[in-house]
Amino acid sequence: MNSERKISSAVINRLPRYYRYLGDLLESDITRISSKELSTKMNITASQIRQDLNNFGGFGQQGYGYNVEYLYNEIKKILGLDRVYNLIVVGGGNIGQALVNYTNFEKRGFVITAVFDVNPRLIGMTIRGVEVYDVDKMEEFVKNNKVDVAILTLPRSQASKVANDLASWGVKGMWNFSHVDLAMPDDVIVENVHLTDSLMTLLYKINEVEMEENANNEN
Amino acid sequence: MNSERKISSAVINRLPRYYRYLGDLLESDITRISSKELSTKMNITASQIRQDLNNFGGFGQQGYGYNVEYLYNEIKKILGLDRVYNLIVVGGGNIGQALVNYTNFEKRGFVITAVFDVNPRLIGMTIRGVEVYDVDKMEEFVKNNKVDVAILTLPRSQASKVANDLASWGVKGMWNFSHVDLAMPDDVIVENVHLTDSLMTLLYKINEVEMEENANNEN
Repeated sequence: MNSERKISSAVINRLPRYYRYLGDLLESDITRISSKELSTKMNITASQIRQDLNNFGGFGQQGYGYNVEYLYNEIKKILGLDRVYNLIVVGGGNIGQALVNYTNFEKRGFVITAVFDVNPRLIGMTIRGVEVYDVDKMEEFVKNNKVDVAILTLPRSQASKVANDLASWGVKGMWNFSHVDLAMPDDVIVENVHLTDSLMTLLYKINEVEMEENANNEN
Repeated sequence: MNSERKISSAVINRLPRYYRYLGDLLESDITRISSKELSTKMNITASQIRQDLNNFGGFGQQGYGYNVEYLYNEIKKILGLDRVYNLIVVGGGNIGQALVNYTNFEKRGFVITAVFDVNPRLIGMTIRGVEVYDVDKMEEFVKNNKVDVAILTLPRSQASKVANDLASWGVKGMWNFSHVDLAMPDDVIVENVHLTDSLMTLLYKINEVEMEENANNEN
């Protein structure tokens, strides 16, 4: 990441999409692409693409298009993805296990190094090579190994205490799947994935549309 | 749901939290609670709670507090959760299976009735009693069974086509875990859970904080 670049948050929010599409092109051994082709694939205008990518010095060349690998790597650096991140999973239940089994993370440099749980049936198991440890070993592990992000997939009754402990041991990022709102120090970032809330919002909106349709039919 | 009520979206967004906390109280056999006690639990002011809940006619009684069960059921109705929703999972991989195994959904009336996949090793299996069908059977299933929401946890190369098919068969809600942006008709609601984007955002913010701290240390 280059602190001298001033990039708007709207552009930043689009970068993961560019990164994703460019990664796909790389995997398909496509080495260059025009803004027009990329536009068709991504369903945004070619002019928007040129404008976005000009923010980083305009890597496109007239008559050649974009060098896919170069652009991919530049966006990777801007997003801070040009390094490996170490993650731990706290809570080895369904969602925790699914995330460990999600091989896409590793491809992106997100490496899950350990899982912690209280369940004796899980402790000592390995999930795709990642060991499940007793949660009592977590302090020692965090203090002796770099942990960038803790993925919290544990019951909400325990999530706040565990997050506080992790923050006090120096973990700066909490990816919170536990259904609880965490109060953390300013220098600790929390990103929430509240699945049940997301589903409730979806259902509420479906009902809203249905109600409007019924009201329109009555008029 | 009562279409005569005009409730601000800020209040609506807080309702799943009230619903969650009141559900916990019910499970602990707590029948009434004062706005002050609820305030302490939920970490929002008692006056905010009274204001929010007054939107629905102010169920609290001076000297008694709130009737937990009544309030729980009222919020349930407002959120449209006073009925059962039928969901199907399309894509029986890690995340799909984790969602089927997530027993909390059923408690809330979100019932997963079928899983669809292309993988012959999965087809015919049951996950916690829910059968995995060949994706070829999906059209017939959707046309013969009420399906409120399709949970899309399939590779993004297939997600758009499948979502279009489902919409054309009458499914009005897509809970989209596939890493792709779906273009749907106006009366179909999409709620995205893009896990990788969420993690990238978290990492970007962690780096931002780190950069600021480094810059401050240099000054």
